[in-house]
Amino acid sequence: MLVAASGSIMKSALSFLVAARECEIGELEQLALTSELVGLVGRLIHALQKERGISNVYLGSQGRRFSEQRAPQAIECDELAQRVRQRFDELYSGPHSVRNGARLFARIAAVLHGLDELPDLRARIAARTLGADASTAAFVRLISGLLAVVFEAADSANDPQISRALVAMFNFMQGKEYAGQERAFGAMVFVGGRVDDCEQEWQQLIDTQERCFQVFVNFADRTALDNWTALRGGPQLAELERLRRIGRSSRAATPLDPHLSQAWYDCCTHRIDAMRAVEDTLASHLRALCERRIEQTRAELRDQQAILASLAQPSSPQTPAPIGPQLERSILDMLQEQSLRLQAMSDELDTVRASLNERKIVERAKGLLMAARKLSEDAAYKLLREAAMNQSRRLVDVAERIIEAHELLGPKG
Amino acid sequence: MLVAASGSIMKSALSFLVAARECEIGELEQLALTSELVGLVGRLIHALQKERGISNVYLGSQGRRFSEQRAPQAIECDELAQRVRQRFDELYSGPHSVRNGARLFARIAAVLHGLDELPDLRARIAARTLGADASTAAFVRLISGLLAVVFEAADSANDPQISRALVAMFNFMQGKEYAGQERAFGAMVFVGGRVDDCEQEWQQLIDTQERCFQVFVNFADRTALDNWTALRGGPQLAELERLRRIGRSSRAATPLDPHLSQAWYDCCTHRIDAMRAVEDTLASHLRALCERRIEQTRAELRDQQAILASLAQPSSPQTPAPIGPQLERSILDMLQEQSLRLQAMSDELDTVRASLNERKIVERAKGLLMAARKLSEDAAYKLLREAAMNQSRRLVDVAERIIEAHELLGPKG
Repeated sequence: MLVAASGSIMKSALSFLVAARECEIGELEQLALTSELVGLVGRLIHALQKERGISNVYLGSQGRRFSEQRAPQAIECDELAQRVRQRFDELYSGPHSVRNGARLFARIAAVLHGLDELPDLRARIAARTLGADASTAAFVRLISGLLAVVFEAADSANDPQISRALVAMFNFMQGKEYAGQERAFGAMVFVGGRVDDCEQEWQQLIDTQERCFQVFVNFADRTALDNWTALRGGPQLAELERLRRIGRSSRAATPLDPHLSQAWYDCCTHRIDAMRAVEDTLASHLRALCERRIEQTRAELRDQQAILASLAQPSSPQTPAPIGPQLERSILDMLQEQSLRLQAMSDELDTVRASLNERKIVERAKGLLMAARKLSEDAAYKLLREAAMNQSRRLVDVAERIIEAHELLGPKG
Repeated sequence: MLVAASGSIMKSALSFLVAARECEIGELEQLALTSELVGLVGRLIHALQKERGISNVYLGSQGRRFSEQRAPQAIECDELAQRVRQRFDELYSGPHSVRNGARLFARIAAVLHGLDELPDLRARIAARTLGADASTAAFVRLISGLLAVVFEAADSANDPQISRALVAMFNFMQGKEYAGQERAFGAMVFVGGRVDDCEQEWQQLIDTQERCFQVFVNFADRTALDNWTALRGGPQLAELERLRRIGRSSRAATPLDPHLSQAWYDCCTHRIDAMRAVEDTLASHLRALCERRIEQTRAELRDQQAILASLAQPSSPQTPAPIGPQLERSILDMLQEQSLRLQAMSDELDTVRASLNERKIVERAKGLLMAARKLSEDAAYKLLREAAMNQSRRLVDVAERIIEAHELLGPKG
């Protein structure tokens, strides 16, 4: 009688252990969906980076160059944007409640708004009623919104292995975007000559790229790392460094040899396209990882359910149920193992997530500047960057000082 | 035509803004459920603390004292445990997917297992086949499992205000539990005389209490703080300090005046019951806060939906829709406001959560010791505590050194 009672009570502890696994599986399935989205967002960003470059050349050449490349590139962007929107809608109406939904959906809203403005932006580019600067800024804003979606996905991932892969992916994508911005900045210098603060600004684009790629290297899987090392070892890098040196020592308002301008554009584009290939290996690693983790956790769940079933039929003669202290031991072991495992996962997650702090600090300082000085996001970021250049500090250090100063001076939040 | 198209596209950005709010509301409703659970868990812990004290006196007096108080206290515990189990089941089968479900459910499984063992524990106490030490350890383990459920609730809360209230609550409950452990430890000394490491162990119980209450003070609401200040200012504290002084200067194996033993028990019990009242104000603050935040967020959602509706009927003559740039402005403002607000919330959350790190560090070190030395949780904690006493360091400092040493020496995880 006591055994039966204790058996039936114990099942309820076990069913919560099973429920814990089921929650893990649900979260992993959600992560698999988000990871698919991240891969697709990477492809859309690449297409938009291309459209930004084409638009710049078109505007910079007074509409003489690349005019016939604009339409097909816009179509490629729109097709990818359509697929991204479909994924957004799937998240919106999916069966799972979305982890970190509030922040993720707010980021998506900003992206959708940016995509909605694309037709108007293109019309103004076609009519050449805005400059290359304004066109670049609009594309930078949209791409930065898409990267924010990827960031939220990385920040809310609940599985340390997948979180590592997403952190590697986010930092690689962000580094690639800085490489794209360097291409645009360099193109401007090669076409129009030296600009104010040319060297510092160029150096900062290089430094921020490098820092992103460093984080990527810390978290990436073997294949992506090998591809990246191959890319870095190629002849393009020497050519890139040569052109950087020439560009940075250019003189004000003095266009450089037009061949150099083309060489710069081609060299950067080649490099960015190669990065896109690395990004693809990251995306397929992420996909495989999600599948593997789901499969692993399902297998663990099956094991637990088998034990549960053996407890439900203690009198079956074929499979004698474990008895008294032995059963007690195995349940204690299971409880302890699960608890240690979840604890270790949570600790590892904290470590991985710490690598996302730098961006959070910069975002927070930007928000404080926006609120305090009534600035737009772009203007707040520009202010931060200028302060960093003037003080020869890293952006994140300037951002940290702003937050500290705000905490000392500001009203208690 | 363009206006209509842009109108309908814009709505989809807006509907994600609305979805972001709906996610917030869903998370707040989940938090309200968890907060109810936390309040109830506090009441169960209090009843178990009482049963632990009664059982100790019963066992310490060879069954002569408190024998008639055991049964009614067990019934009170069982009734509360039944209600806590019902709440667990509601979480299990609730309409919302549970945030942080894997860790929370694993903690619940451990608690249920502990509750399942209570009848057996009580039978052995009744038959006096185990000592006061072992009985205390069993209750400490169960209560610590219940506190771990509260901790997970505090750690996974997604709203900074509610997170603050939960952090205050958790630390208060944890401090109260250390006060209960001090009562048991002191009772043992008053009854049986000085034990090994008496002063350090007593001091550590006082220090850990104080640290918990300090965090509570940093995060608590006005009413709870006022109640706490009144409690600290009362005459009981002077009596407590007097008895602490006497107890700590007692001599080995020399029972103290039996009146002192009763005075100690009564003084501690009075203090712990007063703490229970403070805990009640914390719980009702938490409840009111959840309701208010849900109401606030619903109101914000209604405002957004009103704008959405006005966009859906742009041609209604009664309420002329905002036009072109004006509409554009208001959408940009909304996007920016939402994004800044969520960013600020996330930053505040990070700050609040940092206060939970100390416990995480101790838990992690405990887990490392358990794995490395094949220890039980109790034994690992005891080892940590002894190391802290021997080195005259805080527990968390010893824990941090263990983690550092593991990272330097251990295999890469």
